[in-house]
Amino acid sequence: MLSLPTQPPEVYQERRLRLATRVAGATTMIFAGRARPRNYAANTYAYRPDSHFLYLVGCGIQQAVLVGEGDIWELYLPEDPPGAALWHGESPSLEEIAARTGVARVHALRTLSSRLHVGADRIATVPAIDPLTRLSQGALLGRAWALHDDAELGPAPLTGGDAALADALIELRLRHDDAALQHLRAAAEGTYAAHLAGMAATAPGRLEHAVVAAIEAEMLARGMQPAYGSIVSVHGEVLHNEGHGHTMAAGDLLLVDAGAEHAGWASDVTRTWPVSGRYTSTQRDLYQVVLAAQRAAIERVRPGARYRDIHLYAALELTRGLVELGIFRGEPEGLVERGAHALFFPHGLGHLLGLDVHDMEDLGDRAGYAPDRARAQQFGLGYLRLDRDLAPGMLVTIEPGFYQVPAILADRGLCGPFDDSGALDRARLAAFADVRGIRIEDDVLCTEGAPEVLTAAIPKDIEAIERLVGRGVGA
Amino acid sequence: MLSLPTQPPEVYQERRLRLATRVAGATTMIFAGRARPRNYAANTYAYRPDSHFLYLVGCGIQQAVLVGEGDIWELYLPEDPPGAALWHGESPSLEEIAARTGVARVHALRTLSSRLHVGADRIATVPAIDPLTRLSQGALLGRAWALHDDAELGPAPLTGGDAALADALIELRLRHDDAALQHLRAAAEGTYAAHLAGMAATAPGRLEHAVVAAIEAEMLARGMQPAYGSIVSVHGEVLHNEGHGHTMAAGDLLLVDAGAEHAGWASDVTRTWPVSGRYTSTQRDLYQVVLAAQRAAIERVRPGARYRDIHLYAALELTRGLVELGIFRGEPEGLVERGAHALFFPHGLGHLLGLDVHDMEDLGDRAGYAPDRARAQQFGLGYLRLDRDLAPGMLVTIEPGFYQVPAILADRGLCGPFDDSGALDRARLAAFADVRGIRIEDDVLCTEGAPEVLTAAIPKDIEAIERLVGRGVGA
Repeated sequence: MLSLPTQPPEVYQERRLRLATRVAGATTMIFAGRARPRNYAANTYAYRPDSHFLYLVGCGIQQAVLVGEGDIWELYLPEDPPGAALWHGESPSLEEIAARTGVARVHALRTLSSRLHVGADRIATVPAIDPLTRLSQGALLGRAWALHDDAELGPAPLTGGDAALADALIELRLRHDDAALQHLRAAAEGTYAAHLAGMAATAPGRLEHAVVAAIEAEMLARGMQPAYGSIVSVHGEVLHNEGHGHTMAAGDLLLVDAGAEHAGWASDVTRTWPVSGRYTSTQRDLYQVVLAAQRAAIERVRPGARYRDIHLYAALELTRGLVELGIFRGEPEGLVERGAHALFFPHGLGHLLGLDVHDMEDLGDRAGYAPDRARAQQFGLGYLRLDRDLAPGMLVTIEPGFYQVPAILADRGLCGPFDDSGALDRARLAAFADVRGIRIEDDVLCTEGAPEVLTAAIPKDIEAIERLVGRGVGA
Repeated sequence: MLSLPTQPPEVYQERRLRLATRVAGATTMIFAGRARPRNYAANTYAYRPDSHFLYLVGCGIQQAVLVGEGDIWELYLPEDPPGAALWHGESPSLEEIAARTGVARVHALRTLSSRLHVGADRIATVPAIDPLTRLSQGALLGRAWALHDDAELGPAPLTGGDAALADALIELRLRHDDAALQHLRAAAEGTYAAHLAGMAATAPGRLEHAVVAAIEAEMLARGMQPAYGSIVSVHGEVLHNEGHGHTMAAGDLLLVDAGAEHAGWASDVTRTWPVSGRYTSTQRDLYQVVLAAQRAAIERVRPGARYRDIHLYAALELTRGLVELGIFRGEPEGLVERGAHALFFPHGLGHLLGLDVHDMEDLGDRAGYAPDRARAQQFGLGYLRLDRDLAPGMLVTIEPGFYQVPAILADRGLCGPFDDSGALDRARLAAFADVRGIRIEDDVLCTEGAPEVLTAAIPKDIEAIERLVGRGVGA
């Protein structure tokens, strides 16, 4: 029912202290959320605490509320329902919870309303993701983002103290502290084992499901879980492919986008390997183009670098490679300016990574985009989730790709300018029909010096991958 | 984004026809629900359609609404958002969806309000589990069960046409048709493989996580998933143990309650095996008592039998065994009347099983309890989820157990009468300290003749289990 923090209480005290100095004067309330029912109330998905709560408290406590005033932080906890010890075992004592989380005091949740005496407008909060929690939070604090009949759980428009709190949380969470990095490295290690197991389990005639099972078993065996729905597909061109029901065939590439979550902290890695264990020459050519673009982009993860520039640089590198292969004709720079690369690389180069796989996306673009920046209108660039100047401690993904997406390549509005000018050589492209989708993704930490790739151990060179694929089948 | 039914459309047409004859005159609206966000809107738990929708349509379509009027059934589907084909691939055409689900017509969801002309009170519906769906459903149909700030997603109090619809759905879903049984048998097969893998992966010094991984990988490899959070614990006395972080030790029993879900249909199986591969003599004695009670109860799953009587019969068998072992003293019948068995077997003997692992529990006790019956007040019996007369086609679990729950055995109110009268021999009980929890659970189909145990292949005899535990470790 209740886990306790895995780090010493000082870690969370320090984070709360840093937050307090940024929101001086306000009373802060952070809601932990609760488990979401799957098909009836008692059958829930595994509880995942609200990330802001997890960041500041270190563990998930369903329905709990963290309240800060000045530098005094307190937890409001629901009382165990009758019979809880029978069904869920003994809970830690209130004293133990206070000691392990380092809060000043622990109270009964039913007394939370006593904190409203300062006035709801003097209280700062961020909207919870769980709908029931958000509903009660909105009612308690009189917030206008109460749910309505066509509500999505997208980012609520924040104002006043709520906006200031969100910005303070972003400022903290953008640059990871040592405790965070410890978990992020552990997540990366779990992902390493998962991808190796996935490669070993791949073989012609097997279902994608078999690879999913091998990957997720490695996570589960370490007490981790998938940080997001694993993408394991011979149809890599479907960017958010949720099914795993295809039978893998010898000529296919398998695109695997899977990352482990450790104590709430995520990793996010993509590899693309040949089902047969051997890339064809066309697959090899395009794979090397994507890999070169990825390596070049990773090198540019440096303090002060603007992430959008790295995205465009990766697009340029990719376009150069496609010109060399004869798929594009013309000047790479001019092609990128006109957005040609987005025909094959429509998504962004990457995003923030932390407690959330798209870190702090619950706050919309507030975290990913610096205050004076906004999404572009251009096809491709408009999907970029991150446009900040990098700083030491920021963790980002670098994940260029090449896809032949039918919906794009049949779109006259998108392709027309490049078809008509001869910039796109469809006849040459046809020679690469055995590449539906390639993506290569790593988790890259910006440091004072050279970037640190947390997921560097996961093989991405063609030779290394070819040695690993299928090795575990029939063993 | 969208799966298609796995059975021919006639299966669902037949179900809808049978429902229509039971709710003649009303317009029926069944909501499919949508994926629940995990830590931000775009990172969702795997979508699980509402069970009533799944029963009548055969697949999940997020946000869809099934509308029936007389024998005409139609689907209202959300339109794909712009770019959907890019991210999620091409969706099946509306014609294909209509053909595969067998509905008369398919409409755009935005036109659903045109069906309100009959008046919201002439429309029958059952509350969706997904909070956002329930909210929009409540707003559309003017239902009083709109969510409020302390709302749980428990069963809403239904009246009028909604209550009649719920009863009609229960009447249909209580007795499984051939298509349902096909899925339920497939789920049982997945669970068989999962438990065997779990036994093979068990060994002293390993984490419970390793067994969870082995179990769930077998489900995932078959395109199935856990029907509920797997319980895998050396602390079987914590009935709903959610953690898997203990290291297994040689003298421990491991209680494993895990079942696969196939195309939405559940299985639910518990086995309890020794970590070392050998039951101690005390573990063996108590295991045999539980197993004998379970076998005796299964034999009584016959048409016309009242489930509560089977529960009490299992309690009697269990108590007989405990008297033989010297843990209880006295007449088994009298002990059961006074509720003595519930000190060690506090929960119910089982529940309905179907699309939900506690089938139709979204409707509260309306499904599990016959109209003229209600839960007892007695400790133990009050937890019984099912009190109906059995009929062919009903699938129930039979899952007696023996647990030494500290919260019960230290409860003077519960134990006092038996301590004081000498009915409970604590000194004798102390000899069985190495048994914290045993449960044995199978899925049992009531037929015209002898009961059919769908999960009979999963070993439960001591000799068979001892041959299997640890066999896969180090292999």
